[in-house]
Amino acid sequence: MTQITPNSSFSLTLRLHLPNQPGMLAKATAAIGAAGGNIGDIELIEQERAYTVRDLVVDATSEEHAHAIAERVSAIPELKLLQVDDRTFQIHQGGKIQIVSKIPLRTRSDLAMAYTPGVGRICMAIAREPERVYELTIKRNTVAVLTDGSAVLGLGDIGPAGALPVMEGKALLFKEFANIDAFPVCLSTQNVDEIVETAVRMSTVFGGINLEDISAPRCFEVERLLQERLDIPVFHDDQHGTAIVVLAALENALQLVDKSLTSVRIVINGAGAAGIAIHQLLTAAGARAIVMCDSHGIVSVGRADLNAEKRAVAVERTGALADAMQGADVFLGVSKGGVVSRAMVQSMAGEPVVFAMANPVPEILPEEAEGVVAVMATGRSDYPNQINNVLAFPGIFRGALDCRARRVNLAMKMAAARAIAALVSPDEIAPESIIPSVFDRRVVVAVSAAVQQAARATGVAR
Amino acid sequence: MTQITPNSSFSLTLRLHLPNQPGMLAKATAAIGAAGGNIGDIELIEQERAYTVRDLVVDATSEEHAHAIAERVSAIPELKLLQVDDRTFQIHQGGKIQIVSKIPLRTRSDLAMAYTPGVGRICMAIAREPERVYELTIKRNTVAVLTDGSAVLGLGDIGPAGALPVMEGKALLFKEFANIDAFPVCLSTQNVDEIVETAVRMSTVFGGINLEDISAPRCFEVERLLQERLDIPVFHDDQHGTAIVVLAALENALQLVDKSLTSVRIVINGAGAAGIAIHQLLTAAGARAIVMCDSHGIVSVGRADLNAEKRAVAVERTGALADAMQGADVFLGVSKGGVVSRAMVQSMAGEPVVFAMANPVPEILPEEAEGVVAVMATGRSDYPNQINNVLAFPGIFRGALDCRARRVNLAMKMAAARAIAALVSPDEIAPESIIPSVFDRRVVVAVSAAVQQAARATGVAR
Repeated sequence: MTQITPNSSFSLTLRLHLPNQPGMLAKATAAIGAAGGNIGDIELIEQERAYTVRDLVVDATSEEHAHAIAERVSAIPELKLLQVDDRTFQIHQGGKIQIVSKIPLRTRSDLAMAYTPGVGRICMAIAREPERVYELTIKRNTVAVLTDGSAVLGLGDIGPAGALPVMEGKALLFKEFANIDAFPVCLSTQNVDEIVETAVRMSTVFGGINLEDISAPRCFEVERLLQERLDIPVFHDDQHGTAIVVLAALENALQLVDKSLTSVRIVINGAGAAGIAIHQLLTAAGARAIVMCDSHGIVSVGRADLNAEKRAVAVERTGALADAMQGADVFLGVSKGGVVSRAMVQSMAGEPVVFAMANPVPEILPEEAEGVVAVMATGRSDYPNQINNVLAFPGIFRGALDCRARRVNLAMKMAAARAIAALVSPDEIAPESIIPSVFDRRVVVAVSAAVQQAARATGVAR
Repeated sequence: MTQITPNSSFSLTLRLHLPNQPGMLAKATAAIGAAGGNIGDIELIEQERAYTVRDLVVDATSEEHAHAIAERVSAIPELKLLQVDDRTFQIHQGGKIQIVSKIPLRTRSDLAMAYTPGVGRICMAIAREPERVYELTIKRNTVAVLTDGSAVLGLGDIGPAGALPVMEGKALLFKEFANIDAFPVCLSTQNVDEIVETAVRMSTVFGGINLEDISAPRCFEVERLLQERLDIPVFHDDQHGTAIVVLAALENALQLVDKSLTSVRIVINGAGAAGIAIHQLLTAAGARAIVMCDSHGIVSVGRADLNAEKRAVAVERTGALADAMQGADVFLGVSKGGVVSRAMVQSMAGEPVVFAMANPVPEILPEEAEGVVAVMATGRSDYPNQINNVLAFPGIFRGALDCRARRVNLAMKMAAARAIAALVSPDEIAPESIIPSVFDRRVVVAVSAAVQQAARATGVAR
């Protein structure tokens, strides 16, 4: 496997005791650099005549690598390594979200209005006019981030407790990017009917449900059944969030190579939640020639091992991924790291577009595809063109909540994709600039507005 | 019904335009006073040579009363009533709680540690060692406030949406008094098994479950079944919170009249969740002679209409509430307003203790019992001796969470009651001072410490 760039998921704080002599800090940083660590902030903790104490933030590639860096530093005779902290574990201590009051609660009068007896008037107002729950409670701005822990990140079925740190993280993103209050709902069942029943029973509090990290094909049925039973938006982000951002990026990439979505040959590798949703959305947007592959190669009509969703996208062709890629214009990977070689990209049609979105290791690293691809994107933040759901789901939910949409329909997804694509103006579009940055604050505003407009136009807004 | 004191549950803001002449504000306040409104803050909004604009906060007794006050003010010829706002509805707009981040999320590096890829390491740590969910997620400080909306305040079965403002309010109290993160879970089922299944399936995220406003007798079974199925504390506040505070207040009240819990005759009126729990806790504390009444009078063994909980507390005597009260030392009311007369109190034994805790209107108002009772308490904040659950549940949960108790057992409830009672020192105990103020910051600390000690002593702490 190709070496991964050091990143903050393996981030250490090394606390060093250094003699107060010239060159000591340089020795430490040289050792860290030689061991392959990336140095971030350096903070002066203590300064005495004879010595200094400094905290060095160092990013590594793995726990072993982090350990090796610490070893290397502690081997320098003049220095003392006082402490090594794992920054990632530190920030997750006690969880990442909290619940706070929006109103003051200092006096008896505050209590009497916020709680009993005053709150009784609010309760009765809602009991009399149920729609006022949107006006007088948290519902209008609150989303459930619901999982069964069956397909957490690339880690697989690690259950509801293992999934909770991701759901909390998603809640952070909802707040940070769209000012939405999101709460993790981690269910200890993986039975479709039980998931659906549970979500329906607890849905009163929520203005929307974001399904997360539920494995395919159950995720398709969970979403379908929930949307049938509820009148609030239910949106499986692993499916539609990914598909929306892929469509946005692909529209801009195809402009660069002067090809059209309706005529390109597309290979999607990975027929799980994201792959199937990408197929559906690209087809709705006009794509005609899509070949889907899974770990057994091309999803062909003759195969006996296909679920309903795969059968719906199966093609007449047979063969391996490498066969599918020959002569294709576009490769979209939502599978796993390293499954695409430089030779396979070379076998594609001229000016190939490659989105290698497996995380954390892409199907092919940009370094390996360099000079062969016309446009390349990944799921990673340390390469250009990051295909990241955070471009879609905050604005989708912001828009859906603000117009009290009953669902997120195809028109709203298409509108979201076009809004994202349009934020890169024609003169800005370039091989390393087909999609806005995740930190571009215009994104949520543009997506939300487009989604609301589409919701109103299609009659799902209230 | 006796006239209720104006309070902040019907609180208005009147925006007045007054000519800038002496006596104008006095005219307004005189009119409000004559109409029976209580004036709070007066804020100067605008001051010009010819006029001023002021906001007057006014408490009323009912919506009709509020309307009458506004009418009276607007009838003054020199003044203009520019706007009338209902302050209670204002503060509930959009709900009362929000979810915020505990960590910064400004850079790619923050994202990489809080979310992917860094979060994957946290997930795997929990998947490998499940107990680390307490260290690395919100679980250790998070409580579900769970209801089915079947017995909301005194309002009855108004459903999960109508109950939500109360559950949000409870979450505020958890945060304000114990720094606990509480989230409302309002279920759209009133079936015991479905409530239990739903709560079990979603319990991963929570370190405890506070049951709220679930009607008797279903609440007893919901609590029992949940506590059997889960290894986190499940605590029905309407039962045990009330019982704990009653026991604490009663211990101090009996000191004043020099009687002992083991020898007094006690009448409990109201055989719902609170009444049954009070009976159980007082019995455990040594009370021997308790007569329970419900809307049909004394809960007697011969009655055919009793559920299992009432049968367990039924006595040989028969009769009405008035019969039960004759010669009794203590009356504890958790029923409804106005059911006790002055004559009934006069028929009690010498130096009677009366806790009239129905909300918002007590079984008998302190004014009516004046001169007859030795010690009087209510559930209201505008009279002395407020019996309020907020004295118990924040400290109970703080203690249970901090020692990771598997349940809240009898020893912990008794310890909580004694800790609350002990905060009023022997020389402070007086007829109008048998219980600490809800704003006494020592309460949560004392209760939490006592609860933890009891949990450790009885082996339910981890």
